[in-house]
Amino acid sequence: MPHPSTSRLSPLRRDAVWDVRARQTVAYEVVLTGDLLDPAHDSLARAGIPAGTPTPTRRCVVTEQTIDDLYGDRLRAYFEAHGIDVHWLVLDSGEQNKGMEAVLRAVAAFDAFGILRRQEPVIAVGGGVLTDIVGFACGMFRRGLPHVKVPTTLMGLVDAGIGAKAGVNHAGGKNRIGCYHPPRATLLDPAFLDTLPDRQISNGLAEILKIALVLDAHLFDLLEEFGPLLRAERFQGHTADGERAADEVLRRAIGGMLAELEPNLWEHELERAVDYGHTFSPAVEMHALPALLHGEAVAVDMALTTVISWRRGLLGTAQLDRVLAVMTSLGLPTSHAVCRADLLTDALADTVRHRDGRQRMPLATDIGSAHFVDDVTVDEVRGAAAHFHDSRNR
Amino acid sequence: MPHPSTSRLSPLRRDAVWDVRARQTVAYEVVLTGDLLDPAHDSLARAGIPAGTPTPTRRCVVTEQTIDDLYGDRLRAYFEAHGIDVHWLVLDSGEQNKGMEAVLRAVAAFDAFGILRRQEPVIAVGGGVLTDIVGFACGMFRRGLPHVKVPTTLMGLVDAGIGAKAGVNHAGGKNRIGCYHPPRATLLDPAFLDTLPDRQISNGLAEILKIALVLDAHLFDLLEEFGPLLRAERFQGHTADGERAADEVLRRAIGGMLAELEPNLWEHELERAVDYGHTFSPAVEMHALPALLHGEAVAVDMALTTVISWRRGLLGTAQLDRVLAVMTSLGLPTSHAVCRADLLTDALADTVRHRDGRQRMPLATDIGSAHFVDDVTVDEVRGAAAHFHDSRNR
Repeated sequence: MPHPSTSRLSPLRRDAVWDVRARQTVAYEVVLTGDLLDPAHDSLARAGIPAGTPTPTRRCVVTEQTIDDLYGDRLRAYFEAHGIDVHWLVLDSGEQNKGMEAVLRAVAAFDAFGILRRQEPVIAVGGGVLTDIVGFACGMFRRGLPHVKVPTTLMGLVDAGIGAKAGVNHAGGKNRIGCYHPPRATLLDPAFLDTLPDRQISNGLAEILKIALVLDAHLFDLLEEFGPLLRAERFQGHTADGERAADEVLRRAIGGMLAELEPNLWEHELERAVDYGHTFSPAVEMHALPALLHGEAVAVDMALTTVISWRRGLLGTAQLDRVLAVMTSLGLPTSHAVCRADLLTDALADTVRHRDGRQRMPLATDIGSAHFVDDVTVDEVRGAAAHFHDSRNR
Repeated sequence: MPHPSTSRLSPLRRDAVWDVRARQTVAYEVVLTGDLLDPAHDSLARAGIPAGTPTPTRRCVVTEQTIDDLYGDRLRAYFEAHGIDVHWLVLDSGEQNKGMEAVLRAVAAFDAFGILRRQEPVIAVGGGVLTDIVGFACGMFRRGLPHVKVPTTLMGLVDAGIGAKAGVNHAGGKNRIGCYHPPRATLLDPAFLDTLPDRQISNGLAEILKIALVLDAHLFDLLEEFGPLLRAERFQGHTADGERAADEVLRRAIGGMLAELEPNLWEHELERAVDYGHTFSPAVEMHALPALLHGEAVAVDMALTTVISWRRGLLGTAQLDRVLAVMTSLGLPTSHAVCRADLLTDALADTVRHRDGRQRMPLATDIGSAHFVDDVTVDEVRGAAAHFHDSRNR
């Protein structure tokens, strides 16, 4: 039975489908430089500002207490010299303060500042915890403010500060909530490392060692030879060898990390070599908090998984011994009391959820290379953990 | 003076720059269909699951109290019929519950469920408030869970449910924090509108009217002719005209909105025609909360900005009268007591921050078209507001 016709109306159709397709391009610079806080240079004042655009006369700078204590005067003098009126927010340092509360403090600061949505990139100056908090806050405020990262720790320089990931711990879960929010730019100045505590140097060396173990055998050789010198000199290059070792180790670590991140910036691929040492460590770190720094937990995980590789015959005993010896020489732990079988089993189960139902665990197949496995058993984990508790196994 | 050479080290270099470039493609389907809750159909059970992949046997479904009361039994029966074990979360309905607390309740549900990161898309069934909350929670959990939106209100069907934006109100700011997190799919079933209160029908009609005013004169004609019928029939097509009008109005509204969103999914372009009615309304809505629904606040803003256009001579008196008459016939307000000059001025200032320092205000230049201006003055806003307070002006 035909419907009565009304001229304005088209004939009735049924189901409709709209296909929405869109493409997003991101680009950012990671710049390894020096003298960032020298008022004669404008890298920091111009950070994140497109060429040809005037330098904004006001900025929101978020930093952490430790950095404010050490560099607050120089930072203030720098921005003053560039005629930039700064709205400051100083957050507490430390992994135990990396939560939603800190994110919302940053959000409140952006609001109080009345920040413009695109032309006033937030500047985050601090360690990996601080830049992760600020990155997440910027990612969510008005659905995305631009920001610039200025990492001040070795962990920040080679890992947390150079990628697109941001996030905070939540409900006992390491970086359980966060986002991908690439910075406009990251400025790396190794001079900040001069004031870094020894343990924080070792913390960052853990992520450098990770890159070495899965990607770069030459970097491993450098760590083996120059690790103690780099620790002693805090990457400040007091000797000629120390200067050149710092330069090459930083370049190889940063370049290696970025080469892995760039083609997989949003982690569409969940088999990631840079997840080496990040299978068990999220739970180990959260359970030991604040006893283990992030890099220390990663080291404990790397030691455990390297032993798994050795027990599988993927690595020889000489290689295992070299890896563990380098860890020790870098000031890193190879085990921790929280690494009981039940915690490690739970840790693996949560990582399987994070990796969408499979282990996708990178295991070293040589120093400088890794492959992915899905079949690590609870017994293997238990056996590897016992390696560190029972010297008779060695 | 040459440095002593160490064979393992490369020559020292100075500043280094890494350019990181990456591209992301997103694609999702918006499907207008019927009988979504009929167990004979698998659209909902398969929503967000790639072809060739088995249907997951468990899902997390987030809905709101109102929907659970009205459709909870049918939803449960549907998933049971498809052998899907559902972890339910029921959130409170209403704009005043659209905040971080609700987001973190959803995050806790994902954690308790032990959701897999990619293969178990969350299903959000509810109005725009609900889908915005769930979208944000999914955007942040492990930096991004896939999700499927099933809007149950007219506002959700034509606006909140079909785009990539998610977010919640915070510290008095409308959608102050959020993210772009496109769903895997959006399923639109107008049958849900049968239980929608009259006022919620009008609420959604406001966003349809917006599309008509800035993009689609024919859609305006349809609203003018069939608006009252659509309201009376709740888009259920009880008469032949009502059926065809519902079909065409929904298609034009959804298609028009998506055509604007698709090329600008991450809002790199801040001059957005679909921001018509969204210059003053964020502050109006938040200040009047809960007195005005979102669409009502948008209507008040559209009335105000249409008067600004008329006062500028961009629209004739006949056009202004038609617009205001259609608003009234759709059951929408054209003004509200909170619209005092000071609030409107503050609202504009905040929108300027949101639009990166310029008004970028869409003003109607005809029914069905708009252009952008940056020069609306406080006096103009005051004059336009007075139009509704002082009948002698008409």
